Amino acid sequence: MASSLVNGRPALSVDLSDRGLLYGDGVFRTVRVHGARPLNWPNHYMRLAQDCKALGLVCPEERVLLEEIGRVAAGEASAVAKVIVTRGVSGRGYAYPDGLASTRIVVAHPSPPDSSGAAREGVRVRRCELALARQPRLAGVKSLNRLENVLARAEWRDPAIREGLIGDAEGRLVEGTMSNVFLAFGGKLVTPDLSRCGVVGAQRERIRALARDQSIPCEVRDVGFEELPRADEVFLCNSLIGIWPVVAMGESRWLPGPVASLMQRLIELEDARTG
Amino acid sequence: MASSLVNGRPALSVDLSDRGLLYGDGVFRTVRVHGARPLNWPNHYMRLAQDCKALGLVCPEERVLLEEIGRVAAGEASAVAKVIVTRGVSGRGYAYPDGLASTRIVVAHPSPPDSSGAAREGVRVRRCELALARQPRLAGVKSLNRLENVLARAEWRDPAIREGLIGDAEGRLVEGTMSNVFLAFGGKLVTPDLSRCGVVGAQRERIRALARDQSIPCEVRDVGFEELPRADEVFLCNSLIGIWPVVAMGESRWLPGPVASLMQRLIELEDARTG
Repeated sequence: MASSLVNGRPALSVDLSDRGLLYGDGVFRTVRVHGARPLNWPNHYMRLAQDCKALGLVCPEERVLLEEIGRVAAGEASAVAKVIVTRGVSGRGYAYPDGLASTRIVVAHPSPPDSSGAAREGVRVRRCELALARQPRLAGVKSLNRLENVLARAEWRDPAIREGLIGDAEGRLVEGTMSNVFLAFGGKLVTPDLSRCGVVGAQRERIRALARDQSIPCEVRDVGFEELPRADEVFLCNSLIGIWPVVAMGESRWLPGPVASLMQRLIELEDARTG
Repeated sequence: MASSLVNGRPALSVDLSDRGLLYGDGVFRTVRVHGARPLNWPNHYMRLAQDCKALGLVCPEERVLLEEIGRVAAGEASAVAKVIVTRGVSGRGYAYPDGLASTRIVVAHPSPPDSSGAAREGVRVRRCELALARQPRLAGVKSLNRLENVLARAEWRDPAIREGLIGDAEGRLVEGTMSNVFLAFGGKLVTPDLSRCGVVGAQRERIRALARDQSIPCEVRDVGFEELPRADEVFLCNSLIGIWPVVAMGESRWLPGPVASLMQRLIELEDARTG
């Protein structure tokens, strides 16, 4: 597979003058695809549009992306599609001209290894040493500037540790290196506010909407690492893993709980209906 | 021209799975080249090596880069070479395997338009609204994560304003969007400390060394924007512009002064000797 399109044409590479390479001047999404249909697509497209707006990029039309995701994933029962939008090819220098044509990249990857064991039994995580920088102009945006995530993920090698939680310089919990985080307290959900740093994932947004549908309160607020041991449940989410309950971090222990389990079920149902 | 090499072979593009594109996982330098010889090369290579180390990248050998810069700029009296080192091509995800082969990109661009008028008469600048995020792990590093610079440079269009000065969230002066900044007070130099944010330019390092040779004190410390009006001289530097005196920002006015002029002359002499 690894089928890929650049601006709608089959291609394996991008121009050396593309600002995505030169400056990380672009945004992306990673989408699960079943039978050439992207799952959780409304949230993915909404986030892509918002992230493009944050950087002043023109967001590709939805029908174009759907068609291209369908093309790269054609014939695959299940796949992962990565959608990248960069500001395009320009001359040297940070300034860019008006009306620059953005670069649209759609790539299919094989589905990740099955992680239903992790989804059922939970995972061990660690706390990363790297602290995320506070940049309100980029907070929430899934931009191509991801060195903080790369450096945080490089802090450990032990394959038994499936994710690292990252905080900010003030010791607040923000996210995982590749996931968003939820805490449950007595059947109520809490997830970190991402207005200073972090990435707003499409799965996080879906979980917030599903909680609303179920009348489960979900608060978005600052969360301290010190709250974790008191939480009844802690779970991670992203578009590829779905939901992984956290069962251990340092000395703290949790059990996979009913809120994570309910959310997993609701996601499955929605995917079965729309995928 | 626009001759370019990827890992030593002529190429115009980079793999869609290159981590430079996917995450900005790499570093770069922009070098002036005269007669196929890079100017200020010792500082460029030293910074490249330090930046590679900061990200855990293997720095290409000096002789390989010199040979490739010579090849892309061959036959040109003067050119600009951009050197990019990325972590290389890997599978999806922030983690990367041990021993991944980095990607080495060397591209020649035409020399920038002559700016000797700006170097002589000075330039108007503005203060940018964007504040740089504090990230000690990446501070000083000329990484491919440059969205802050892109957003700051997009704040103005007036071509009469040649540069924007950027501060941090605490109101300290850090750098220009594409340059480093020096202030002169009574024949002594001051340049902002870059241990929390900003890019350490090779020209900045050269100016610090030249000042040392001339027994001109040069202090690296936190600088407040409020110090600018009191400075006898303010000047910008990078490898392409050399030194531009600042003559106006907002209501403040300065004249091109003797320290900037001396540094320009010393740079010219060094370039003539080594270029």
